[in-house]
Amino acid sequence: MEKVNLAQKLTLFNDHWHPRIVGELNDSHVKLVKVQGEFVWHHHDHEDELFLVLNGRLHMQFRDHAVWLEAGEFIIVPRGVEHRPVAPEEVHLLLLEPKSTLNTGNVMDEKTAVAEWI
Amino acid sequence: MEKVNLAQKLTLFNDHWHPRIVGELNDSHVKLVKVQGEFVWHHHDHEDELFLVLNGRLHMQFRDHAVWLEAGEFIIVPRGVEHRPVAPEEVHLLLLEPKSTLNTGNVMDEKTAVAEWI
Repeated sequence: MEKVNLAQKLTLFNDHWHPRIVGELNDSHVKLVKVQGEFVWHHHDHEDELFLVLNGRLHMQFRDHAVWLEAGEFIIVPRGVEHRPVAPEEVHLLLLEPKSTLNTGNVMDEKTAVAEWI
Repeated sequence: MEKVNLAQKLTLFNDHWHPRIVGELNDSHVKLVKVQGEFVWHHHDHEDELFLVLNGRLHMQFRDHAVWLEAGEFIIVPRGVEHRPVAPEEVHLLLLEPKSTLNTGNVMDEKTAVAEWI
Protein backbone atom coordinates (compact mmCIF):
# COMPACT_ATOMS: atom_id res chain seq x y z
CA MET A 1 0.00 0.00 0.00
CA GLU A 2 2.54 2.56 -1.20
CA LYS A 3 1.70 5.85 -2.81
CA VAL A 4 2.54 6.39 -6.47
CA ASN A 5 4.00 9.63 -7.77
CA LEU A 6 3.00 9.93 -11.42
CA ALA A 7 5.84 12.28 -12.42
CA GLN A 8 8.43 9.99 -10.81
CA LYS A 9 7.04 6.92 -12.57
CA LEU A 10 7.17 8.77 -15.89
CA THR A 11 10.93 9.17 -15.52
CA LEU A 12 11.36 5.38 -15.58
CA PHE A 13 10.72 4.82 -19.28
CA ASN A 14 10.87 6.69 -22.55
CA ASP A 15 9.57 4.40 -25.27
CA HIS A 16 6.28 5.10 -26.99
CA TRP A 17 3.04 3.10 -27.06
CA HIS A 18 4.29 0.68 -24.42
CA PRO A 19 2.09 0.96 -21.32
CA ARG A 20 3.46 0.36 -17.83
CA ILE A 21 1.34 -0.78 -14.88
CA VAL A 22 1.50 1.42 -11.78
CA GLY A 23 -1.51 0.19 -9.82
CA GLU A 24 -4.24 -2.39 -9.56
CA LEU A 25 -7.65 -2.19 -7.98
CA ASN A 26 -10.66 -4.41 -8.28
CA ASP A 27 -10.38 -5.94 -11.79
CA SER A 28 -8.48 -3.03 -13.29
CA HIS A 29 -4.98 -1.75 -13.88
CA VAL A 30 -3.79 1.83 -13.71
CA LYS A 31 -1.21 2.33 -16.44
CA LEU A 32 1.05 5.07 -17.72
CA VAL A 33 2.07 5.38 -21.34
CA LYS A 34 4.02 7.84 -23.47
CA VAL A 35 2.77 8.17 -27.02
CA GLN A 36 3.80 10.02 -30.14
CA GLY A 37 2.59 9.61 -33.70
CA GLU A 38 -0.40 7.62 -34.91
CA PHE A 39 -1.67 4.49 -33.24
CA VAL A 40 -3.63 1.73 -35.00
CA TRP A 41 -7.41 1.76 -35.35
CA HIS A 42 -8.83 -0.78 -32.93
CA HIS A 43 -11.57 -1.51 -30.44
CA HIS A 44 -11.97 -3.61 -27.32
CA ASP A 45 -14.79 -6.13 -27.33
CA HIS A 46 -15.30 -6.28 -23.58
CA GLU A 47 -13.49 -3.36 -21.99
CA ASP A 48 -14.18 0.33 -21.47
CA GLU A 49 -11.00 2.41 -21.35
CA LEU A 50 -10.23 5.72 -19.67
CA PHE A 51 -7.56 8.06 -21.11
CA LEU A 52 -6.44 10.93 -18.87
CA VAL A 53 -3.92 13.36 -20.36
CA LEU A 54 -1.13 14.22 -17.90
CA ASN A 55 1.13 16.17 -20.26
CA GLY A 56 0.67 17.24 -23.86
CA ARG A 57 -2.27 17.12 -26.21
CA LEU A 58 -3.96 14.03 -27.60
CA HIS A 59 -6.17 13.77 -30.67
CA MET A 60 -8.57 10.90 -30.02
CA GLN A 61 -10.10 9.87 -33.32
CA PHE A 62 -13.35 8.00 -33.78
CA ARG A 63 -14.83 6.90 -37.09
CA ASP A 64 -17.30 9.80 -37.14
CA HIS A 65 -15.56 12.51 -35.12
CA ALA A 66 -12.48 13.36 -33.12
CA VAL A 67 -11.69 15.10 -29.84
CA TRP A 68 -8.64 17.05 -28.69
CA LEU A 69 -7.74 16.23 -25.09
CA GLU A 70 -5.56 18.61 -23.09
CA ALA A 71 -3.75 17.99 -19.81
CA GLY A 72 -6.32 17.50 -17.04
CA GLU A 73 -8.94 16.09 -19.41
CA PHE A 74 -10.10 12.52 -19.81
CA ILE A 75 -12.33 10.55 -22.11
CA ILE A 76 -13.87 7.13 -21.63
CA VAL A 77 -14.06 4.98 -24.74
CA PRO A 78 -16.82 2.39 -24.33
CA ARG A 79 -16.27 -1.20 -25.37
CA GLY A 80 -16.88 -1.84 -29.05
CA VAL A 81 -16.10 1.71 -30.19
CA GLU A 82 -13.31 1.99 -32.74
CA HIS A 83 -10.74 4.60 -31.85
CA ARG A 84 -7.26 5.77 -32.74
CA PRO A 85 -5.11 7.95 -30.47
CA VAL A 86 -2.89 10.36 -32.40
CA ALA A 87 -0.20 12.55 -30.83
CA PRO A 88 1.57 15.05 -33.08
CA GLU A 89 3.92 15.70 -30.16
CA GLU A 90 4.72 13.46 -27.19
CA VAL A 91 1.84 12.93 -24.79
CA HIS A 92 1.84 11.30 -21.36
CA LEU A 93 -1.33 9.41 -20.50
CA LEU A 94 -2.82 7.68 -17.51
CA LEU A 95 -4.96 4.72 -18.57
CA LEU A 96 -7.51 2.85 -16.57
CA GLU A 97 -8.80 -0.41 -17.97
CA PRO A 98 -9.56 -4.02 -17.02
CA LYS A 99 -6.53 -6.21 -16.45
CA SER A 100 -7.47 -8.23 -19.52
CA THR A 101 -7.00 -5.26 -21.86
CA LEU A 102 -4.42 -5.45 -24.66
CA ASN A 103 -3.35 -2.05 -25.98
CA THR A 104 -4.29 -2.77 -29.60
CA GLY A 105 -7.56 -4.47 -28.70
CA ASN A 106 -8.83 -6.63 -31.56
CA VAL A 107 -5.76 -5.95 -33.73
CA MET A 108 -2.33 -7.61 -33.62
CA ASP A 109 0.16 -5.04 -34.81
CA GLU A 110 3.78 -3.97 -34.43
CA LYS A 111 2.51 -1.66 -31.67
CA THR A 112 0.93 -4.53 -29.72
CA ALA A 113 2.70 -4.55 -26.35
CA VAL A 114 2.30 -6.32 -23.05
CA ALA A 115 2.28 -3.94 -20.10
CA GLU A 116 4.74 -4.57 -17.27
CA TRP A 117 4.75 -3.30 -13.71
CA ILE A 118 7.12 -0.48 -12.88
CA MET B 1 -18.65 9.99 -25.27
CA GLU B 2 -17.70 13.50 -24.23
CA LYS B 3 -14.42 14.53 -22.73
CA VAL B 4 -14.31 15.66 -19.11
CA ASN B 5 -12.23 18.61 -17.97
CA LEU B 6 -11.38 18.05 -14.32
CA ALA B 7 -10.81 21.72 -13.47
CA GLN B 8 -14.12 22.71 -15.04
CA LYS B 9 -16.01 20.02 -13.14
CA LEU B 10 -14.43 21.20 -9.89
CA THR B 11 -16.02 24.63 -10.37
CA LEU B 12 -19.50 23.06 -10.17
CA PHE B 13 -19.57 22.35 -6.44
CA ASN B 14 -17.98 23.57 -3.24
CA ASP B 15 -19.22 21.38 -0.42
CA HIS B 16 -16.90 18.98 1.36
CA TRP B 17 -16.97 15.17 1.59
CA HIS B 18 -19.74 14.91 -1.00
CA PRO B 19 -18.42 13.05 -4.06
CA ARG B 20 -19.71 13.79 -7.56
CA ILE B 21 -19.67 11.28 -10.41
CA VAL B 22 -17.92 12.42 -13.59
CA GLY B 23 -17.49 9.14 -15.45
CA GLU B 24 -18.32 5.46 -15.56
CA LEU B 25 -16.42 2.58 -17.07
CA ASN B 26 -16.80 -1.13 -16.62
CA ASP B 27 -18.17 -1.54 -13.07
CA SER B 28 -16.63 1.63 -11.72
CA HIS B 29 -17.29 5.31 -11.25
CA VAL B 30 -14.83 8.15 -11.58
CA LYS B 31 -15.65 10.73 -8.92
CA LEU B 32 -14.44 14.12 -7.79
CA VAL B 33 -14.62 15.29 -4.22
CA LYS B 34 -13.46 18.31 -2.22
CA VAL B 35 -12.45 17.53 1.35
CA GLN B 36 -11.33 19.46 4.38
CA GLY B 37 -11.00 18.36 7.98
CA GLU B 38 -11.15 14.83 9.32
CA PHE B 39 -13.23 12.07 7.80
CA VAL B 40 -14.55 9.05 9.69
CA TRP B 41 -12.59 5.82 10.14
CA HIS B 42 -14.09 3.22 7.83
CA HIS B 43 -13.35 0.39 5.44
CA HIS B 44 -15.03 -1.12 2.42
CA ASP B 45 -15.74 -4.84 2.57
CA HIS B 46 -15.69 -5.50 -1.16
CA GLU B 47 -14.15 -2.51 -2.90
CA ASP B 48 -10.65 -1.25 -3.55
CA GLU B 49 -10.48 2.55 -3.81
CA LEU B 50 -8.06 4.83 -5.63
CA PHE B 51 -7.40 8.37 -4.34
CA LEU B 52 -5.55 10.73 -6.70
CA VAL B 53 -4.72 14.19 -5.36
CA LEU B 54 -5.46 16.92 -7.91
CA ASN B 55 -4.89 19.95 -5.67
CA GLY B 56 -3.66 20.23 -2.11
CA ARG B 57 -2.20 17.73 0.30
CA LEU B 58 -3.97 14.75 1.86
CA HIS B 59 -3.01 12.84 4.97
CA MET B 60 -4.25 9.29 4.48
CA GLN B 61 -4.28 7.58 7.85
CA PHE B 62 -4.23 3.84 8.45
CA ARG B 63 -4.34 2.14 11.83
CA ASP B 64 -0.59 1.51 11.84
CA HIS B 65 0.83 4.30 9.69
CA ALA B 66 -0.08 7.31 7.57
CA VAL B 67 0.95 8.75 4.22
CA TRP B 68 1.04 12.31 2.93
CA LEU B 69 -0.20 12.54 -0.64
CA GLU B 70 0.69 15.55 -2.78
CA ALA B 71 -0.84 16.67 -6.09
CA GLY B 72 -0.01 14.11 -8.78
CA GLU B 73 0.17 11.23 -6.31
CA PHE B 74 -2.29 8.43 -5.75
CA ILE B 75 -2.79 5.59 -3.33
CA ILE B 76 -4.95 2.50 -3.64
CA VAL B 77 -6.64 1.37 -0.45
CA PRO B 78 -7.46 -2.35 -0.71
CA ARG B 79 -10.81 -3.69 0.47
CA GLY B 80 -10.96 -4.38 4.16
CA VAL B 81 -8.30 -1.85 5.15
CA GLU B 82 -9.42 0.78 7.64
CA HIS B 83 -8.52 4.29 6.59
CA ARG B 84 -9.28 7.91 7.37
CA PRO B 85 -8.54 10.78 4.99
CA VAL B 86 -7.57 13.99 6.76
CA ALA B 87 -7.10 17.35 5.06
CA PRO B 88 -5.82 20.24 7.19
CA GLU B 89 -6.52 22.48 4.18
CA GLU B 90 -8.91 21.90 1.28
CA VAL B 91 -7.93 19.07 -1.04
CA HIS B 92 -9.40 18.11 -4.41
CA LEU B 93 -9.42 14.39 -5.14
CA LEU B 94 -10.21 12.12 -8.03
CA LEU B 95 -11.64 8.81 -6.81
CA LEU B 96 -11.99 5.58 -8.69
CA GLU B 97 -14.10 2.86 -7.12
CA PRO B 98 -16.83 0.34 -7.91
CA LYS B 99 -20.30 1.81 -8.48
CA SER B 100 -21.46 0.08 -5.31
CA THR B 101 -19.10 2.10 -3.09
CA LEU B 102 -20.52 4.31 -0.34
CA ASN B 103 -18.13 7.02 0.83
CA THR B 104 -18.19 5.97 4.49
CA GLY B 105 -17.98 2.25 3.72
CA ASN B 106 -19.14 0.17 6.67
CA VAL B 107 -20.09 3.22 8.76
CA MET B 108 -23.26 5.31 8.66
CA ASP B 109 -22.32 8.83 9.69
CA GLU B 110 -23.27 12.44 9.19
CA LYS B 111 -20.68 12.45 6.38
CA THR B 112 -22.37 9.55 4.57
CA ALA B 113 -23.36 10.94 1.16
CA VAL B 114 -24.74 9.57 -2.07
CA ALA B 115 -22.75 10.68 -5.10
CA GLU B 116 -24.62 12.34 -7.96
CA TRP B 117 -23.62 12.88 -11.56
CA ILE B 118 -22.41 16.32 -12.55
